[in-house]
Amino acid sequence: MDMGRKCIAECLGTFWLVLGGCGSAVLAAHVADAAGYPFGIGYAGVALAFGLTVLTGAYALGHISGGHFNPAVSLGLWAGGRFPSSGLLPYIVAQVLGGLLAALVLYGVASGKAGFAIDPGAAGAFASNGYGAFSPGGYTLGAAFLAEVVLTAVFLLVIMGATHRNAAAGFAPIAIGLALTLIHLISIPVTNTSVNPARSTAVAVFAGENALGQLWLFWVAPLLGGVLGGVVYRLLNRND
Amino acid sequence: MDMGRKCIAECLGTFWLVLGGCGSAVLAAHVADAAGYPFGIGYAGVALAFGLTVLTGAYALGHISGGHFNPAVSLGLWAGGRFPSSGLLPYIVAQVLGGLLAALVLYGVASGKAGFAIDPGAAGAFASNGYGAFSPGGYTLGAAFLAEVVLTAVFLLVIMGATHRNAAAGFAPIAIGLALTLIHLISIPVTNTSVNPARSTAVAVFAGENALGQLWLFWVAPLLGGVLGGVVYRLLNRND
Amino acid sequence: MDMGRKCIAECLGTFWLVLGGCGSAVLAAHVADAAGYPFGIGYAGVALAFGLTVLTGAYALGHISGGHFNPAVSLGLWAGGRFPSSGLLPYIVAQVLGGLLAALVLYGVASGKAGFAIDPGAAGAFASNGYGAFSPGGYTLGAAFLAEVVLTAVFLLVIMGATHRNAAAGFAPIAIGLALTLIHLISIPVTNTSVNPARSTAVAVFAGENALGQLWLFWVAPLLGGVLGGVVYRLLNRND
Amino acid sequence: MDMGRKCIAECLGTFWLVLGGCGSAVLAAHVADAAGYPFGIGYAGVALAFGLTVLTGAYALGHISGGHFNPAVSLGLWAGGRFPSSGLLPYIVAQVLGGLLAALVLYGVASGKAGFAIDPGAAGAFASNGYGAFSPGGYTLGAAFLAEVVLTAVFLLVIMGATHRNAAAGFAPIAIGLALTLIHLISIPVTNTSVNPARSTAVAVFAGENALGQLWLFWVAPLLGGVLGGVVYRLLNRND
Repeated sequence: MDMGRKCIAECLGTFWLVLGGCGSAVLAAHVADAAGYPFGIGYAGVALAFGLTVLTGAYALGHISGGHFNPAVSLGLWAGGRFPSSGLLPYIVAQVLGGLLAALVLYGVASGKAGFAIDPGAAGAFASNGYGAFSPGGYTLGAAFLAEVVLTAVFLLVIMGATHRNAAAGFAPIAIGLALTLIHLISIPVTNTSVNPARSTAVAVFAGENALGQLWLFWVAPLLGGVLGGVVYRLLNRND
Repeated sequence: MDMGRKCIAECLGTFWLVLGGCGSAVLAAHVADAAGYPFGIGYAGVALAFGLTVLTGAYALGHISGGHFNPAVSLGLWAGGRFPSSGLLPYIVAQVLGGLLAALVLYGVASGKAGFAIDPGAAGAFASNGYGAFSPGGYTLGAAFLAEVVLTAVFLLVIMGATHRNAAAGFAPIAIGLALTLIHLISIPVTNTSVNPARSTAVAVFAGENALGQLWLFWVAPLLGGVLGGVVYRLLNRND
Repeated sequence: MDMGRKCIAECLGTFWLVLGGCGSAVLAAHVADAAGYPFGIGYAGVALAFGLTVLTGAYALGHISGGHFNPAVSLGLWAGGRFPSSGLLPYIVAQVLGGLLAALVLYGVASGKAGFAIDPGAAGAFASNGYGAFSPGGYTLGAAFLAEVVLTAVFLLVIMGATHRNAAAGFAPIAIGLALTLIHLISIPVTNTSVNPARSTAVAVFAGENALGQLWLFWVAPLLGGVLGGVVYRLLNRND
Repeated sequence: MDMGRKCIAECLGTFWLVLGGCGSAVLAAHVADAAGYPFGIGYAGVALAFGLTVLTGAYALGHISGGHFNPAVSLGLWAGGRFPSSGLLPYIVAQVLGGLLAALVLYGVASGKAGFAIDPGAAGAFASNGYGAFSPGGYTLGAAFLAEVVLTAVFLLVIMGATHRNAAAGFAPIAIGLALTLIHLISIPVTNTSVNPARSTAVAVFAGENALGQLWLFWVAPLLGGVLGGVVYRLLNRND
């Protein structure tokens, strides 16, 4: 299949990831009625939403592009020997563009509510990722870096393992999507959970200077974790 | 298989979608004990319920009718070249009838609680869809229209992709049902989430004048989004 | 496979259904810390638990007994032409015994907390089912009856459809288990959700006179609904 | 496949189980904003997280090691005739090491929040298991023991049944992972839920003297339950 079509699939899939994951966080995480009844979906609902974007996107588009939707996944699969280096740049560009387009649509919907404003001084503004003062729970740079590296590494282990030729066919999108749900169940309080530089970049552009200033971590740590996971899995299966 | 049996399956499936999705919203979303403990299922539970109606209905009835349960899905599949134009009218009539029957049963159950009343002046009355003053979160017509078009379009991408001959067989109801859960996780605050004109029509009849007056949007936007998603997927796979 | 082994499987499966579903309701639905933070799983968590008992039990034991775990399912499958009349009595006896055993174990665990007591005057005591004054939301006998009949009927449609020879093989426990989750998402406020006479009987014995006095409805309505669903599905597939 | 590689897989899988399950409990179960809005994932989210560690780990690593990630599972499978006695010691050592490594990483992340401290006098400190004064709900030793034995026994029934040659292939990780979710939905208030001595040991080391003093129960009861479940399933299928 030609690279152009694969890139469109990656663009659409990352669009869906950012629209669904960040969209649920921005629009639906915190909703209460006048009496304070918590109707909103909270962190658990956002975690489910992120995972379901990948589960559904991978069933829909995986047979076209492989369903990465994430630069750390593409790089990790390359490190694991499952993705050609020639595909890295086009995939990553397509992913970032898809994420940005989703953030634009999300901004269009979210700004349709009276009083909507993005406060660049608030942690997690417009679903952005952050550490220190911009971590939802106030976690340090070191804790944020550790969490992002380790969680992305395990994410790659799950991706490599669930798509291994000895694994049960057809189930990979369930395993991979729900791994992303699990990662969010653990770490939203730490960094608002990235493990995906395209997702972080997309909303940082709208969240403003603080998110942009911390964006380096959400490229470096997930990419490092992705490579780590890819290499570990490759070593584990080296004679297999 | 004859069209009559297919239409009965579509009627039953849309009955289940409205009874389960709108039923959970009306009966179980907001429940608290005397001390205010939030037992109710909230928006996340309603999102799960809507998705599970389609997941379960598609496994039960999909081999008879294809499991659309939604006029926007039937039209989108037609636009994507997967459904004959001759089936559109009977399917859509069956879906609307099934939805109305479910709303009637739901009214029968819900009215069995002392003090039950539908307030046509309240946003989301009897699980109806709305925009502006009748959006749960007060989102404008423009935001509502944008959300319904885009989310229905992606819904069709998932449906077309997960049922493509290159996709893993048997998993489509999981992908499609959980895509509907995801759509609700994002957009209940915006429009109470339609992406399905039959669902909107069924409860608008009971919710009263305001819901009926805004019903046009929940036909136009989902149908437009469905066609958009069907066409985009068709183009993406045009040589495949 | 001999009937004795099938009955042990039905007994174990119904044990799991009552222990998991009613156990989560009794032990974990309502938990708050001193400051009132709602840690408990609420109605959505209980709904998930009931469904997962069937999903997991059907994968574990379905190849032995078919995985009914519910007299209304056994009778409905008989009405639908999928289960021999000779199996009805032994299956139902095994199911009721398994449920009672689970209620006994649950009582043993629950009574290990200081201050534990079952108030037979409270709606939903020890996860019992009820209507009128013993409905969690105060729903009338008529509403309770309607809900139990309709929801059991659709449950049977899902069971018959998902296990039909034209349905995707292997997925039935997912469809059937999550259908039970969905049924609970809708109707816990109405009757505390039965659709299963063995489940209702098991906890009514511990909940006391009021639950026992209303137990007839949770035999009659689910059995009627089960037969209705079995017959409707059979007619729908009569030439298939 | 050689034992060394299997042990690495068990170590990685148990690492993921403890990091994901205990991590979500420590970092994300209890989160509120200044106004008290309950963003945190609560017991239901933690239950989902524990189950998803096994679901995802089993799809990723199950084809290497079988995906036990739990000494009670290894011993139960041995009792059920599905695992050689020669594998018990290396598997259990690998599982305990993996769990300890995860607890160390979790400590590294959690301690990155200002004011973080482990209170060894609090029930459930650092996601530790306990009974009596150290049970989250104050359940007695007897109730805790009963719950851990019965739930681990059923866990083994599900594992043995879902991986039986007559069961649908490929679905076992879904059934087993969601069984662990279900077990947590029932019993977090009782013991904080163990059914896994490696998980209990890993966090007890960090939680301090009280958790270590009660650790014996979370080896004895799960191992006993695992053997019970393995033997019961073996008897049920003895001629099969």
